[in-house]
Amino acid sequence: MYKIEVGFKDICEAYTRIKPYVVKTPLIRSDKMSELFGSDVWFKLENMQPIGAYKLRGAMNNMLAMSKEDLARGVVAASAGNHSQAVAYAARMQGASAIVCVPESTPMNKRESAVRYGAELVVYGADYAAAEEKAHEIEREQGRKFVHAYESSETVAGQGTVALEVLLENNDFDAIIVPTGGGGLLCGVAIAAKAMKPEIEVYGLQTDTSAPWKKSFAEKRLNNDCPFIPSIADGLEGEITWPNVELALTCVDGIIVVSEESTKEGIKWMAKNHHLMIEGASATCIAALLEGHEELKGKKVLCIITGGNIDLDKFCKVCEAEYPERD
Amino acid sequence: MYKIEVGFKDICEAYTRIKPYVVKTPLIRSDKMSELFGSDVWFKLENMQPIGAYKLRGAMNNMLAMSKEDLARGVVAASAGNHSQAVAYAARMQGASAIVCVPESTPMNKRESAVRYGAELVVYGADYAAAEEKAHEIEREQGRKFVHAYESSETVAGQGTVALEVLLENNDFDAIIVPTGGGGLLCGVAIAAKAMKPEIEVYGLQTDTSAPWKKSFAEKRLNNDCPFIPSIADGLEGEITWPNVELALTCVDGIIVVSEESTKEGIKWMAKNHHLMIEGASATCIAALLEGHEELKGKKVLCIITGGNIDLDKFCKVCEAEYPERD
Repeated sequence: MYKIEVGFKDICEAYTRIKPYVVKTPLIRSDKMSELFGSDVWFKLENMQPIGAYKLRGAMNNMLAMSKEDLARGVVAASAGNHSQAVAYAARMQGASAIVCVPESTPMNKRESAVRYGAELVVYGADYAAAEEKAHEIEREQGRKFVHAYESSETVAGQGTVALEVLLENNDFDAIIVPTGGGGLLCGVAIAAKAMKPEIEVYGLQTDTSAPWKKSFAEKRLNNDCPFIPSIADGLEGEITWPNVELALTCVDGIIVVSEESTKEGIKWMAKNHHLMIEGASATCIAALLEGHEELKGKKVLCIITGGNIDLDKFCKVCEAEYPERD
Repeated sequence: MYKIEVGFKDICEAYTRIKPYVVKTPLIRSDKMSELFGSDVWFKLENMQPIGAYKLRGAMNNMLAMSKEDLARGVVAASAGNHSQAVAYAARMQGASAIVCVPESTPMNKRESAVRYGAELVVYGADYAAAEEKAHEIEREQGRKFVHAYESSETVAGQGTVALEVLLENNDFDAIIVPTGGGGLLCGVAIAAKAMKPEIEVYGLQTDTSAPWKKSFAEKRLNNDCPFIPSIADGLEGEITWPNVELALTCVDGIIVVSEESTKEGIKWMAKNHHLMIEGASATCIAALLEGHEELKGKKVLCIITGGNIDLDKFCKVCEAEYPERD
């Protein structure tokens, strides 16, 4: 089985490479959440990247690590979310052609977002697994490089630059919380953070509607035997794979599961208090604080606000709902 | 009558002073608006300042230009909007006490926002003029410095740092559009821009519901004889005064008036396409582009996105409305 090999030096290299192409996103303190949570809470606003999500870092690092020959043959990726936009955007920036494979269930607006940056769209199969299969077929047939959304050393190293960037600016944090889907960001952040400040705790966040990381991490083996229910945090949905779990077991401190309801409340909280539109995945950070998880109490906590790509109708619906009063 | 004296050197001085206390906000290109408008459109995201608006620059510059004795006596301001938050925040940062005067009509949430940063709130009178009168009374009685929202050299110089910051990063713009209420930002931006690149055109923006700048600028005299209707761009509402008009006549190229409807549409456009929550004043930039004003056609345009402090209910209502199709 593939093993992800990423050290701190790879993250430093990645940062040097991608720096001219990504935004140094704002790091802001939330006075309101700090007061509410009785702690010191900061947000790293990766929703301010050009494609609206941190995924640009990993995609850009993949692109810049390639040989000229590989770039000339182009790339292929599978994803209906931010990764496809990131690959399309990064490929265009390097003058490479990109194909993005999405399953037939992908809604129109998500299809468009990949095409917007000049990628060719291939719609194939009933689910993500089928679309990825198709992407690998294209990889073999056309000699294109497959850019994996989380299970690749270059991707993990690229995502880890988020933590490197924050800790160069302010290295005073006790804990970092990281919305976690495949685990590329979680591992990258943990590797960078532990190298720069070994005592920092790093936690992955999932919603109770899709939490394969919880058991897998606790049992130190891949365990996808849990419910998978469509979630407002659509970027975090789905089964996971062993390589990222294996890597996380070497550098991550734990997994925190938050409720679907708190996640929605987190979106509204952020809009109301910080006038920021964030996507469901990002809102798991707010949810973890609102739910008052013990691991974070009294600490200086860094929240990675991973992205802001949320459908406007969905956003307004979530913001107009009422949520139970908190103590 | 008071004359505002601001040169480029004052803006440079202001920038050196306030730089440690304000955020270098993102400058992003809008591919979508560029395509739509057939031009090259960029946003300076001052909504990313800690208080959610550029006003922090002016308030901070006032505070840092004061003597220790003045700081010890504290400050006083009048405003129900972003300026009061800015003064409260800047005062707290410098360990000074602040009093903010608002009229009785000020809604609860706007009253709270001033208090949040530790200012003392004085609610007085039927309108802004009465509240400002009260603030001047406190100024005289307590020896506090009155921090004016737009009609002060320190304020104008502070706001001008927005343009200085942008043009140091990218000085390739043909035109800058500036949401305009009192005119402090408009004048500051124009003075900085003309010093750094004389051929840049600078335009002020107002809504047709409150557009005293249009006639005043055209007639080269103060003319507040126009309708004043409550607007979604509440930060731009109200009568203006001569000192800012006098200054604008030396450095500004024109005033563009946009419709109330386009301004609302601008809020929705920004949320839908960039996942950014912006307040009505900022949305006049989007409105000017959507309306296709000739002054901006084919140019590289910089939009100052002045702030993001919009009530969430109001925001959702505006975003759920439908707007006429554009050609």
